[in-house]
Amino acid sequence: MGNLQKDETKSLRKKHIGPSCKLFFKEDPLKIVRGEGAFLYDENDTPYLDCINNVAHVGHCNRDVVEAGYKQMQVLNTNSRFLHDNLVLYAERLATSLPGNLSVAFLVNSGSEANDLALRMAYQHTGNKDVITLDHAYHGHVVSLIDISPYKFNLPGGKGCPEHTWVAPVPDIYRGKHRTGTGLTEHELGSKYASEVDSIIEKMADKGRAPAVFIAESLQSCGGQVIFPDNYLGEVYKSVRAAGGIVIADEVQVGFGRVGKHMWAFQSYDSSLVPDIVTMGKPMGNGHPIAAVFTTPEVAQSFSATGVEYFNTYGGNPVSCAIGNAVLDVIEKEKLMENAVEVGNYLLTEFKQLAGRYKCIGDVRGRGLFVGIDLVKDKATREPDTALAKKILTTLKEKHILIQTDGPSNNVIKLKPPMVFSMENAKHLVHNIVQVFDSVEN
Amino acid sequence: MGNLQKDETKSLRKKHIGPSCKLFFKEDPLKIVRGEGAFLYDENDTPYLDCINNVAHVGHCNRDVVEAGYKQMQVLNTNSRFLHDNLVLYAERLATSLPGNLSVAFLVNSGSEANDLALRMAYQHTGNKDVITLDHAYHGHVVSLIDISPYKFNLPGGKGCPEHTWVAPVPDIYRGKHRTGTGLTEHELGSKYASEVDSIIEKMADKGRAPAVFIAESLQSCGGQVIFPDNYLGEVYKSVRAAGGIVIADEVQVGFGRVGKHMWAFQSYDSSLVPDIVTMGKPMGNGHPIAAVFTTPEVAQSFSATGVEYFNTYGGNPVSCAIGNAVLDVIEKEKLMENAVEVGNYLLTEFKQLAGRYKCIGDVRGRGLFVGIDLVKDKATREPDTALAKKILTTLKEKHILIQTDGPSNNVIKLKPPMVFSMENAKHLVHNIVQVFDSVEN
Repeated sequence: MGNLQKDETKSLRKKHIGPSCKLFFKEDPLKIVRGEGAFLYDENDTPYLDCINNVAHVGHCNRDVVEAGYKQMQVLNTNSRFLHDNLVLYAERLATSLPGNLSVAFLVNSGSEANDLALRMAYQHTGNKDVITLDHAYHGHVVSLIDISPYKFNLPGGKGCPEHTWVAPVPDIYRGKHRTGTGLTEHELGSKYASEVDSIIEKMADKGRAPAVFIAESLQSCGGQVIFPDNYLGEVYKSVRAAGGIVIADEVQVGFGRVGKHMWAFQSYDSSLVPDIVTMGKPMGNGHPIAAVFTTPEVAQSFSATGVEYFNTYGGNPVSCAIGNAVLDVIEKEKLMENAVEVGNYLLTEFKQLAGRYKCIGDVRGRGLFVGIDLVKDKATREPDTALAKKILTTLKEKHILIQTDGPSNNVIKLKPPMVFSMENAKHLVHNIVQVFDSVEN
Repeated sequence: MGNLQKDETKSLRKKHIGPSCKLFFKEDPLKIVRGEGAFLYDENDTPYLDCINNVAHVGHCNRDVVEAGYKQMQVLNTNSRFLHDNLVLYAERLATSLPGNLSVAFLVNSGSEANDLALRMAYQHTGNKDVITLDHAYHGHVVSLIDISPYKFNLPGGKGCPEHTWVAPVPDIYRGKHRTGTGLTEHELGSKYASEVDSIIEKMADKGRAPAVFIAESLQSCGGQVIFPDNYLGEVYKSVRAAGGIVIADEVQVGFGRVGKHMWAFQSYDSSLVPDIVTMGKPMGNGHPIAAVFTTPEVAQSFSATGVEYFNTYGGNPVSCAIGNAVLDVIEKEKLMENAVEVGNYLLTEFKQLAGRYKCIGDVRGRGLFVGIDLVKDKATREPDTALAKKILTTLKEKHILIQTDGPSNNVIKLKPPMVFSMENAKHLVHNIVQVFDSVEN
């Protein structure tokens, strides 16, 4: 469209874009003009290695995905009130990737729309109103989801925890309420965290209420790249269902093979886990706005029984589905899940080794291309080192590598690169992080 | 993607798509495989004249829009946390089309996301929680919007009116609470309807509360193509603001020049009207998922003051903005607003003439390419003729013309075709509707 000087872009943005919409590196933001594979390029064509963009799942501007979109855009782009092959074939293909009877799809435009719709289904199916969510969780930007996102409502400017939201401690065995180093096994810690959900259900019962739903990201992203004990979700699902609720696996950030060995992150804990609802988003269209809710025929039937139609103007249009389908093709054709295993394992192994060498690395955790490095001031107390995380972030930016920090103390280095992230990219990242560690500890 | 027999598509849809997602003509749905201009084509390449698809605003598969999308998809599609010219130039261009100081944009993916965000801003800016909405209104499919959509919550399976929602009678001077034919002028009726909002504000005050916001579609679409008296919104805005609330013009269905003489439908009532928030959607990307909230720097500042960031993963990405910008180009280049005036006036004049000839046409109303024909059993009592509306719908489908019916009694023929709808298309439509009227009344 235009070709503005960076300063003009910046001042027009200040004038016309809401100030709540934050920029990365707000003191000195980047102007990005093109993307390719795992790289973003600024206005001087300087490449930045992208270690954070989990939306550009199969690589920025993947040719196959772009062509699939272009081909369908030329032919038809209309709503789902007509029959169309793209919608049904794409829904069928995704259903096949899911365990159990999660065979019914609702196609929408964003992870927020997906999680909101999932909540509506849970309310309708159970007749209950209470939601159990994890501490530090973020499930989306609409009113109903801010209400179940402690990551937002617990901020200083947030509105606090609503009456029908119950916050369970996040099963973070490094930094959470129940921790390693206390003599308990991971399994025991998982059970302790699960029993926290039991306590919540009991408190609800004291008020004459029962849960509509338990919702959790399968790996907690905003909370600081948290991975749960393998037995946690299974035990929680059992308790919540026994109390009359259902369970949602929020795979918006972490689905579509990011964990490497499995298509869906919840599968990486226990192959027998079957949520009642799975929500998907971000990586689904490689940047194109598409998301989905998958559920069982039973839950879909309860939702339909009211007679109230669900219509989503753009959801499930032929272009979105063609793009979504092309993303699945690329994941298979380019063996990106295998790549996530290989490169993810390399990163995990390297950083774990580095943790032996540097005092500032408290914990390293990851599954596939979802990796977190928890930085500490002191390994014994596990006191978070927020300043160091920020230093690494800004130093790497100068070295043209983009990472993010997150977690309640903003001390966790968050890596979730496009799935085309190569061994070479990974080595480049490790090499540069090591330089920062060296400069700090020597 | 595939090339299924229609029956296979239908049975896969039944298996994999939520039953709440309804099809048009559910007994005998259409399989649509391509679109061009004002026409949709089924699997046998039979053309259907599309009189309802207000999303395909500049025509199905408009070449310029498709190419703009393709060009940008090849180069970059990432989130708005980086500076990009497309976002700021598109926001600036839309801001210029709006009156007053509606200069600050938040780009999102759907009308529902836009209205939800607008509500959040209203709550934040006013500190109030109560919403005044119109009867039969529909503002979107997320939890917060179902709560202010009588079109949904008043259905038999709906959950009824929530505590903080107040429903004002829709200012429908043909079929509403205050009507023509009672000796009152349109202006007087407008004031009567506005005073209904005053009564609501008084009742709120009795409870010690005040409105956060008044929200209305500028022309009520789902309510049966309702056009308000010219003075209505101005008087309501004044009252709501005096009580501490702000006002949202929902232009999701009716914006982008559909009314012909104006870019935004609210402008067609009174050139001095300036809402505090304008929401946009459907036609914005000609089918691509894009929507927006525009507001004043003051409201944007209140929303930002909490310190809680607003991040929308896909909102304002370079592809969506390139597509949105191309839609604006086509509206100008192909003089589609002028076309809406010409063709809209033709339809209005023809149907008003027909109303003199046929007993079943109670009212004809419209602005540009937004037209409603209110069908009655009896002109004196204005009793709605739902069966006739259905007969026209199904007969026209057999003649390969797609219309919709709507309104509380589903007796209003709803026309909102792509803006490329030509005089020839309009004549074809009128000719065929006349045939149905003739067959019924002779």
